[in-house]
Amino acid sequence: MSTVAVSPSNSISMLAERYAAVRAQSTALARPLSPEDACVQSMDDASPAKWHLAHTSWFFETFVLAQSNTNYTPFDPNYRVLFNSYYNAVGAQYSRPHRGLLTRPSLSDIHAYRSHIDTQMSRVIEGDIDPELAAIIEVGLHHEQQHQELLLMDIKHLLSCNPVAPAYIAHVERPVLATSELSFCDYPGGIIRVGADGTDFSFDNERPCHDALLHEYSLATRPITNKEYLAFISDGGYHNSLLWLADGWATVKKHDWEAPMYWRNTDDQWFEFSLTGEHPLVPNAPVVHISYYEADAYARWANARLPTETEWEFAANDTATHGNFVEHEYLHPQANGSTDLSHPTQLFGDVWEWTMSPYIPYPGFQTPAGAIGEYNGKFMSGQMVLRGGCCVTPHEHIRATYRNFFYPANRWQFGGIRLAR
Amino acid sequence: MSTVAVSPSNSISMLAERYAAVRAQSTALARPLSPEDACVQSMDDASPAKWHLAHTSWFFETFVLAQSNTNYTPFDPNYRVLFNSYYNAVGAQYSRPHRGLLTRPSLSDIHAYRSHIDTQMSRVIEGDIDPELAAIIEVGLHHEQQHQELLLMDIKHLLSCNPVAPAYIAHVERPVLATSELSFCDYPGGIIRVGADGTDFSFDNERPCHDALLHEYSLATRPITNKEYLAFISDGGYHNSLLWLADGWATVKKHDWEAPMYWRNTDDQWFEFSLTGEHPLVPNAPVVHISYYEADAYARWANARLPTETEWEFAANDTATHGNFVEHEYLHPQANGSTDLSHPTQLFGDVWEWTMSPYIPYPGFQTPAGAIGEYNGKFMSGQMVLRGGCCVTPHEHIRATYRNFFYPANRWQFGGIRLAR
Amino acid sequence: MSTVAVSPSNSISMLAERYAAVRAQSTALARPLSPEDACVQSMDDASPAKWHLAHTSWFFETFVLAQSNTNYTPFDPNYRVLFNSYYNAVGAQYSRPHRGLLTRPSLSDIHAYRSHIDTQMSRVIEGDIDPELAAIIEVGLHHEQQHQELLLMDIKHLLSCNPVAPAYIAHVERPVLATSELSFCDYPGGIIRVGADGTDFSFDNERPCHDALLHEYSLATRPITNKEYLAFISDGGYHNSLLWLADGWATVKKHDWEAPMYWRNTDDQWFEFSLTGEHPLVPNAPVVHISYYEADAYARWANARLPTETEWEFAANDTATHGNFVEHEYLHPQANGSTDLSHPTQLFGDVWEWTMSPYIPYPGFQTPAGAIGEYNGKFMSGQMVLRGGCCVTPHEHIRATYRNFFYPANRWQFGGIRLAR
Amino acid sequence: MSTVAVSPSNSISMLAERYAAVRAQSTALARPLSPEDACVQSMDDASPAKWHLAHTSWFFETFVLAQSNTNYTPFDPNYRVLFNSYYNAVGAQYSRPHRGLLTRPSLSDIHAYRSHIDTQMSRVIEGDIDPELAAIIEVGLHHEQQHQELLLMDIKHLLSCNPVAPAYIAHVERPVLATSELSFCDYPGGIIRVGADGTDFSFDNERPCHDALLHEYSLATRPITNKEYLAFISDGGYHNSLLWLADGWATVKKHDWEAPMYWRNTDDQWFEFSLTGEHPLVPNAPVVHISYYEADAYARWANARLPTETEWEFAANDTATHGNFVEHEYLHPQANGSTDLSHPTQLFGDVWEWTMSPYIPYPGFQTPAGAIGEYNGKFMSGQMVLRGGCCVTPHEHIRATYRNFFYPANRWQFGGIRLAR
Repeated sequence: MSTVAVSPSNSISMLAERYAAVRAQSTALARPLSPEDACVQSMDDASPAKWHLAHTSWFFETFVLAQSNTNYTPFDPNYRVLFNSYYNAVGAQYSRPHRGLLTRPSLSDIHAYRSHIDTQMSRVIEGDIDPELAAIIEVGLHHEQQHQELLLMDIKHLLSCNPVAPAYIAHVERPVLATSELSFCDYPGGIIRVGADGTDFSFDNERPCHDALLHEYSLATRPITNKEYLAFISDGGYHNSLLWLADGWATVKKHDWEAPMYWRNTDDQWFEFSLTGEHPLVPNAPVVHISYYEADAYARWANARLPTETEWEFAANDTATHGNFVEHEYLHPQANGSTDLSHPTQLFGDVWEWTMSPYIPYPGFQTPAGAIGEYNGKFMSGQMVLRGGCCVTPHEHIRATYRNFFYPANRWQFGGIRLAR
Repeated sequence: MSTVAVSPSNSISMLAERYAAVRAQSTALARPLSPEDACVQSMDDASPAKWHLAHTSWFFETFVLAQSNTNYTPFDPNYRVLFNSYYNAVGAQYSRPHRGLLTRPSLSDIHAYRSHIDTQMSRVIEGDIDPELAAIIEVGLHHEQQHQELLLMDIKHLLSCNPVAPAYIAHVERPVLATSELSFCDYPGGIIRVGADGTDFSFDNERPCHDALLHEYSLATRPITNKEYLAFISDGGYHNSLLWLADGWATVKKHDWEAPMYWRNTDDQWFEFSLTGEHPLVPNAPVVHISYYEADAYARWANARLPTETEWEFAANDTATHGNFVEHEYLHPQANGSTDLSHPTQLFGDVWEWTMSPYIPYPGFQTPAGAIGEYNGKFMSGQMVLRGGCCVTPHEHIRATYRNFFYPANRWQFGGIRLAR
Repeated sequence: MSTVAVSPSNSISMLAERYAAVRAQSTALARPLSPEDACVQSMDDASPAKWHLAHTSWFFETFVLAQSNTNYTPFDPNYRVLFNSYYNAVGAQYSRPHRGLLTRPSLSDIHAYRSHIDTQMSRVIEGDIDPELAAIIEVGLHHEQQHQELLLMDIKHLLSCNPVAPAYIAHVERPVLATSELSFCDYPGGIIRVGADGTDFSFDNERPCHDALLHEYSLATRPITNKEYLAFISDGGYHNSLLWLADGWATVKKHDWEAPMYWRNTDDQWFEFSLTGEHPLVPNAPVVHISYYEADAYARWANARLPTETEWEFAANDTATHGNFVEHEYLHPQANGSTDLSHPTQLFGDVWEWTMSPYIPYPGFQTPAGAIGEYNGKFMSGQMVLRGGCCVTPHEHIRATYRNFFYPANRWQFGGIRLAR
Repeated sequence: MSTVAVSPSNSISMLAERYAAVRAQSTALARPLSPEDACVQSMDDASPAKWHLAHTSWFFETFVLAQSNTNYTPFDPNYRVLFNSYYNAVGAQYSRPHRGLLTRPSLSDIHAYRSHIDTQMSRVIEGDIDPELAAIIEVGLHHEQQHQELLLMDIKHLLSCNPVAPAYIAHVERPVLATSELSFCDYPGGIIRVGADGTDFSFDNERPCHDALLHEYSLATRPITNKEYLAFISDGGYHNSLLWLADGWATVKKHDWEAPMYWRNTDDQWFEFSLTGEHPLVPNAPVVHISYYEADAYARWANARLPTETEWEFAANDTATHGNFVEHEYLHPQANGSTDLSHPTQLFGDVWEWTMSPYIPYPGFQTPAGAIGEYNGKFMSGQMVLRGGCCVTPHEHIRATYRNFFYPANRWQFGGIRLAR
């Protein structure tokens, strides 16, 4: 399939192993959830955990099982509509803002569905697998990893609506590391290569690899911390229209924003709601759950700007993708204690870093044929690119060329700030 | 307590028995529901089943346990806010349209809460009970019966949103009885007594008992059937503005109403969704789940009108309260097969009958002192009175003087039509 | 035409005179308005002055000229749609909330339209006029008087939106009269006659004249003043939910109401915007521009209630209709200086008095046949009755049986408070 | 002032002449409008013509007169708020969606305001003018030209809401020219200079002039015509979700779009509303009043794409800015009859051409200091760039580097399609 760069590592045994591992991780993430937790939808943008578990299975059923076997009998014909997210080419979809109304099928029905799909999929994977099919399975696994992150974002939002402030998992106290002073690294301009070259797996939106012109720039050595963001708040940042984009200012006024999404002020002390419950704000940790508008206003206040996605990628190209990912089970950004100011740190993990680049196609971008062509291309309007993954992203899901995207007003993803000049 | 007419039958042993029976009935109604079913809220007007189970217990905890024992320790201090419906005098309330977001406490937590309250309540009831306290307990039991009906209305709405059309309980086929031709009984005018005289339990809104002037009138011998309502639809009823109140017509246009709430047309055949799933429409059964606007338009089309609540009560005064109530477990209105045209039938049970009377206070009405004063009085604006109970009402909850009330656009309660002239 | 009680005074010469006088009054009311003032619509509920001038002429064109002459050529065929208010039986209507977009026809076009209609109408009136046609003309004149009041209400709202606070007409300083202490007159109960008996002109909603049962009651001798209403505000009236109907409290919160509609607080002093501009609040004058919800909450706070419309009418039956009407050109309610506490004063004029009676049909009410049947009947839902006329009502338009009606949240009409017990 | 590149041609005599000419043009454009036409606002995005006339004068009063003379007495102190568009640094603004409610000041008041400002301005211009002040005056004249175009866009929308379909100016029949077949011109890639170099006047958003990397591309020789767009409609373009961006498809469904904004279908024939009234659609003329979403969907349907703004500018750099501008008084796009396929035609005038480039700052962009810094920078979010001017743009206002910008759903500006590959 032309839309997917097939990695040479897709040997069948590795695929089977990866399939099992990724699928098991979804199940593991759902384990702390009650049937109620897994069913409810707390806002239009979010989906129930149960729906994520079902939809990722629907993806394999629709794009692999039904494609590879013309006699395939669906597990339940209703699921074709219920768990189709947005693929118009596949057919009708159950209304997105109503996903939380589906109390039936139950959570255990969905676990049975997953088992059924896994059994069927193992037959396909162990068979004489077509490389094009293997490539779609690979997409399906990366797709499931995206939904693992969404599941955690959405559960965090749901639990945050409960005045009892329940924790997704128990809190573990950890030593708080120091944070270095903010400094900047300089980069020269020139023509560079941008995007995925097809050596490893990539999504269609990372391709084609192409030349881009970079102007000289500097990039901050680490993300902005809560303490630094508090200085912006204390300086009246949320009340000074001159710091904001016009759309941003309208959004601040409409929602009465006064602080990042999950911050709460009680008796003049700041707390932050996290997947481990509500805790006092950690000054050294990266600020998180802010919108593009807030990141942009902060940067203006700090006499800086956000980087372009090309600037970010160039800096990240020669950096290892180590960082605070979902595997660490912190599920919250952390100060990293680094004192090395010679190059940017924490580019990967902790917080998705807003760039000033709107999410548009790369020169020469082609949407793949068929329903899979709806995967990315149709969202290339009105959203901004974020880079680097965060503390709820699977580590192996991320890479320097990876393009995430959200609307500038979105805050429920783990978005943070890295400055540029 | 002046707001409640204490019935002489409130001997302590009977109260204990009644308490146990009413509370057990709530638990029984929740039994067919999964934790997911019991948690989700399908529209702002509805509440989750779990919330109904908790709120009815909160009522006893707040108005009986905490009142009768100044050292009372609440089961969970969070519940004071979470399960307060609308009593501003008690304090803050968790936002009504967000009740469905409370995945915690879990359904089993709420069952534990119920047990705890029941244990505490039995101590109060078996003790040296104050008559005023006994009267509040009586209110609490009638209150819980109201929520039993709401629980079934709300679950019906929730399940109706699911394209799989799940049944709350299994369907039992029953013989369909015949329905007599529609005819009318005549009543003379004169001054009559209206409202509850205090002999038995009544809500404050049924009091004081007072004189009212009745003009000569006629009342239909039975409710309008699905077949009769279909004739209205076939005659273009939903497309002829001249049949409708202005607000009704605006509502029809806004929601594109073409039939009663749970009717569905597939391949030119009408089906009706019910608590036992989706089934072909039964022509002889009373039409149900229509708004006041539809009842009013139907009446105008049929050259009749809806009765006033006084006309209805006068006719009902000398009628036994037999009928199709929740205890029959039909959970849907039925044709009753009666051929007796000498007096109105089915005044009680089957469908709540819309009257043309706005819900306003009776002459001399006084809201009781304290929080309980918010029970009824503050809703006396913008709603219409319905009479007679329905197929999901507890039988012993109903009486001739009972006033139910809904907004004219509401359809999810079991509202139907009885004509007058 | 059965819908209109023809008054014996409808001799032709008197009709011609009345026609000329009423039509001239509309033109006079529009005189202080610029073409811009007459064109703009400041909210959905209001209409432009130009539209009122046109619609009242459309009424005569549609219901008199086109009915009496089958060869009648309309002044402009577009007007049939543009200036139809809500008569579905006549045909389509231009969207109500967009009436203010009709910059063409111009104000002078509409004046030409009015002249044309007047010329045609004088031929009809001077001819051998059919009594039924005379009766419709009579309705048309009362209809035009209603729109005269609406024109002033709507212009007041429009000018109030302008930060410059322009006056409709110049302010004339007048001596402020004293106001007596509030006291109550007692009335016995019994069966009384209610509604219009057909002696003089009446609208269909005032008929049929019928018996009603009155319970003993007391009625305040005058409306509530600004000073008294200020005491309610100072006592936290707008912040105490226990004083309000549930719908009223929701409305207060939604709109952040803190005072009557046109009150403005500058440097801790209260001003009131009026048709003669913004002026310091007059303590002794009746409070005006409050909703039903506010009237009801005030009454509860004052340990009283609002009267029923029957109670009001019984008291008004033997009172002369003198009062502060549009002819006085105050265009604002005034203290009347009366010290007579033996009977209610200011029942007529100054402020429309909210009653606790929902606007529903009288027993035996029939909507007239034809389009004119849409005049009143279809609005009998969700609104409350007000009685007595106000300072912008034509004096001869009002009578004891007159029923005005608005939604309980409406404030832009001149609504005030008279208490009952 | 660093924000404005001062053109060497700003000699004082030329400035006086230009000032007089631009100001006179605004007055001329308002001449066909009645006071009502000039007052009403037909949607939130539009402003009344009277407001445009006032605001452009406010600009000179605020940024020139009040700056250059510390004793300056404002014409009317209320105007500072009433006619401030969006300059938070200047102070409060009257609510934008309510501009149409300002029936006072009247149109003649505003004409008096304009005269007053012109008199004051001529003293400033004829005096010993500071170059920085001259530069602001230059901005003010370009600003006024922008509002001349807005005035025509807004009046077109207002008149289109009137079922009578009034014309702004009388229609003149013109010979319809032929249109060549669509073909493409090829351009090589490479590093080019983009943006304004400061030789002539430019807005801050056109600067700084900078290097950009161009990939090889082709550009259509002319805009898409109505006939071509009709083929897209006939092929089900508005009903095929696969052709649309996700946000575009949601917009199509929300507004039930079936054709460009001012197209109307009567008896199966297409008409188009224009500033000269409603006329049959001209097949050869460029399609106009489409959103970015429609332009993008059309391009996808045509196996092409929209150009980037850099691609457009490179092609336009060596093209004369001749074209159909406001001075031609067509006020509607025209076929140009060109048969030359060797280079793009109609790049300037007729229709603004949507590019696929989001409106973001050029590398190194700095917002100017002071209130004038709000002119462009704060809108660099969520909007798309359009290039080339249109049939209601003043000719001398346009240049190859000019960047216009609208939200992707906007249709009331004169937006059209030029394809690229």
